[in-house]
Amino acid sequence: MNMNEETLDPVDWAPLRAVAHTAVDDLLGLTENLRSGPVWKSMPEDVQKFFQQSLPQEGEALEKIYADVMEKIVPYRTGNIHPRFWGWVMGNGSGTAMIGEFIKAGINLNAGGGFQSGAFVERQVIRWCCQMMGYPETASGLFVGGGSMANLVGIAVARNQMAQWNMRQEGLQGENKKLIAYASREVHSSVQKAIELLGMGNENLRLIGTDSFFRINIEELSKAILRDRNNGHIPFCIIGCAGTVNTGAMDDLAALAEICKEEKIWFHVDGAFGALAAIAPELRHLVAGMEQADSIAFDMHKWMYMPYAAGCVLVKNAAAHRHTFSLTPTYLSHAEGGLAGGESWFSEFGIELSRSFEALKVWMNIREHGIKKFGRIIHQNVRQAQYLGKLVEANPDFELLAPVTLNIVCFRYLKNGSNEKQLNEFNHKLLIRLQQSGKAAPSNTIVNGKEGIRVCITNHRSKSEDFDLLLSALRELAEGQVT
Amino acid sequence: MNMNEETLDPVDWAPLRAVAHTAVDDLLGLTENLRSGPVWKSMPEDVQKFFQQSLPQEGEALEKIYADVMEKIVPYRTGNIHPRFWGWVMGNGSGTAMIGEFIKAGINLNAGGGFQSGAFVERQVIRWCCQMMGYPETASGLFVGGGSMANLVGIAVARNQMAQWNMRQEGLQGENKKLIAYASREVHSSVQKAIELLGMGNENLRLIGTDSFFRINIEELSKAILRDRNNGHIPFCIIGCAGTVNTGAMDDLAALAEICKEEKIWFHVDGAFGALAAIAPELRHLVAGMEQADSIAFDMHKWMYMPYAAGCVLVKNAAAHRHTFSLTPTYLSHAEGGLAGGESWFSEFGIELSRSFEALKVWMNIREHGIKKFGRIIHQNVRQAQYLGKLVEANPDFELLAPVTLNIVCFRYLKNGSNEKQLNEFNHKLLIRLQQSGKAAPSNTIVNGKEGIRVCITNHRSKSEDFDLLLSALRELAEGQVT
Repeated sequence: MNMNEETLDPVDWAPLRAVAHTAVDDLLGLTENLRSGPVWKSMPEDVQKFFQQSLPQEGEALEKIYADVMEKIVPYRTGNIHPRFWGWVMGNGSGTAMIGEFIKAGINLNAGGGFQSGAFVERQVIRWCCQMMGYPETASGLFVGGGSMANLVGIAVARNQMAQWNMRQEGLQGENKKLIAYASREVHSSVQKAIELLGMGNENLRLIGTDSFFRINIEELSKAILRDRNNGHIPFCIIGCAGTVNTGAMDDLAALAEICKEEKIWFHVDGAFGALAAIAPELRHLVAGMEQADSIAFDMHKWMYMPYAAGCVLVKNAAAHRHTFSLTPTYLSHAEGGLAGGESWFSEFGIELSRSFEALKVWMNIREHGIKKFGRIIHQNVRQAQYLGKLVEANPDFELLAPVTLNIVCFRYLKNGSNEKQLNEFNHKLLIRLQQSGKAAPSNTIVNGKEGIRVCITNHRSKSEDFDLLLSALRELAEGQVT
Repeated sequence: MNMNEETLDPVDWAPLRAVAHTAVDDLLGLTENLRSGPVWKSMPEDVQKFFQQSLPQEGEALEKIYADVMEKIVPYRTGNIHPRFWGWVMGNGSGTAMIGEFIKAGINLNAGGGFQSGAFVERQVIRWCCQMMGYPETASGLFVGGGSMANLVGIAVARNQMAQWNMRQEGLQGENKKLIAYASREVHSSVQKAIELLGMGNENLRLIGTDSFFRINIEELSKAILRDRNNGHIPFCIIGCAGTVNTGAMDDLAALAEICKEEKIWFHVDGAFGALAAIAPELRHLVAGMEQADSIAFDMHKWMYMPYAAGCVLVKNAAAHRHTFSLTPTYLSHAEGGLAGGESWFSEFGIELSRSFEALKVWMNIREHGIKKFGRIIHQNVRQAQYLGKLVEANPDFELLAPVTLNIVCFRYLKNGSNEKQLNEFNHKLLIRLQQSGKAAPSNTIVNGKEGIRVCITNHRSKSEDFDLLLSALRELAEGQVT
């Protein structure tokens, strides 16, 4: 058969190898020298236009493509690799993780199932996560894209397990009893997204009020559960927040665990970043009770500084977890040997069947540093938040907007003679100017109606001096061109 | 403030840089020389035990960790990078994609939202995908983990759009009318998973019979829709298969589009690999009608040979897509400038909020080769399947189990004097032996009750000689130790 067969592989590998070595030097060089560059740069219009080009019909030299990547993509990144990025909740990444991702793409294994090394690595990291969270090693777990998926998986298991009928077969259609979930008003929007996706309807997610520390009001929660039971509904899940996204508030997880036990309700913890406080001995008391949860969602690409993606969900009842997702049609049947052998497949514990090998970089990083060091740097971030909080309080130009309970500092600049509306507008603009200056990148917040600046420290590269620089940069901008 | 601050970054970057360069040479070397090694190797027990070690407390040298990766992880991969891997539906990856993944981890941008280069690249690749699929560029799209997620997103939009009430607010709870979905019996299990997850219940997914080519029976489908309407239900979605996983069958997508138009039903195409036939001019007729679909799911990590993950979903009605997922709480509010600027965020079009920058490797590869070359290699895979099909038919030791309509060949070895049960057992063992030999890695199949060997060619590295080798290896094993 004469086919004149083609491949995506080069005939001569030398030029590709050269570009790869250049990428290593360029990207590690960038990482080593982050502090001397801007946190973030706005993409100019001519670069924006470059990305309008239509589908390429013919190929181009890799060297040209690499030059475009370095010139038009790399400089206009989100900026979360920088020591002074504190926006939303993002981690940084590491040089070792970059190597891990290169190897991941090189071996390109499908972590969904089968008898292969990725399954062994992922199972080991999941066991490590259980140890980190005070969970039994009999729990099941899964790497997922992030906290949103982790919450979805946890709440899906809760739904299927707590329904009084065969949820997979019958669904929610035609049922008269309603399943009701509970969380504080400060709960992350991904929980609402999960409830909606699972077909339960946002109106069946009860958002409970909070105290002055933005923690769920336990009394109000208990009353809501009672009211729903009296109305014939099924309270099926309480979502506790281990670190709210806005202020870093920690719900009283032990109290929630107690209620769930008494009321026979599934206890899910959204610990996207806050759950990782469990790694630091000095902070572990903040998440006391989390180990009693039925499921925990957290992201190692947040407060363990991994690059995307390294989300994780743990479920204490492995059988319930598997029972929610497992499907083994003929073409996925397991065998007693060969490639289709091995223990239960990860694809039976979540939505995805083909899965990339995200556990590798985490495995490499945890081994390189040991978990104690991660605990120290997590604690360091909390001490940095306290440091910044004190700087803000000590400075009459600034006002703290919420108590600093974890790694988040919400504050605003006070401009003499401004009313609340003007202060909101001023701080809104001030933040944008600060980001545009490239000096630091917090994100915005609104706390009790006051718009301000939110510094969320999930950054292994930040130093205390970076927070001094933040306040002086803000003051300079506030006193200067921002009007 | 004296904190004695730590970081995950090394003090001296030289050793890390050295490991990175070694990884480039090792992994590109592996890729260049794949053909000389086994497709797959079973992990020995002592290596399995290595992954039992508990959570490391203290760190280790990166060189040691790298050595473990090369010795204990890399050799025991799934094997889908190899020219003779044809199991399930997996792609291979490429050297350029490895560089892309290294850069991705280096800049570690969050592709979920904000004003950053990743959004420009992903939007551009989505537009390219629209061109590839014959879709208008006004369609919306999203990179996802894989076909399962892509199906989930498409069917979720269908559910919310076709319900006669506010699905996000009310959900399916307490509704009397039932939403019903339709697909052929050959549909991928991820569709069932999506239906279950969305709360609709597997019993509300009608599995329709197929013809001798394993294509959905249109008449039976029409009758089922009519029956459901007469029973007061709401037929909301037909899922067409563009390439079934078992045999590569293509539903008559034009006929399905016609029914959906007449009946006002959402038309979703699961084209996990088969949709990519649209890229090859010689194969495009096979997916005629796909361009009329309301949503299409496909994976560039399958028949576009990208490494994991490069799943994609396109939705023709961008507003319906966004309306299903968009949530913008305070902490995700968009701004008129700075990092929170930019067009609508990808997090508003799917489940995930933090998202890794998977589009980069695809962007680099499409530019490097041009889409025409991808079309040629996809067509090459189909011609290879036809070649193998003919080899099988020409050989009395083998029997073809299904027509070769795309890139999948299902066949079995015939052993003289065996009954059907014995043949099933024999072929089951034969496949495992073949995988264990390291010579080739197809997966198993059961077609009309007959167990056999399934060769799915989504491999840019396969040559026609590899299929000669496959049959001779099977014959050798069959005549030898397999009893």
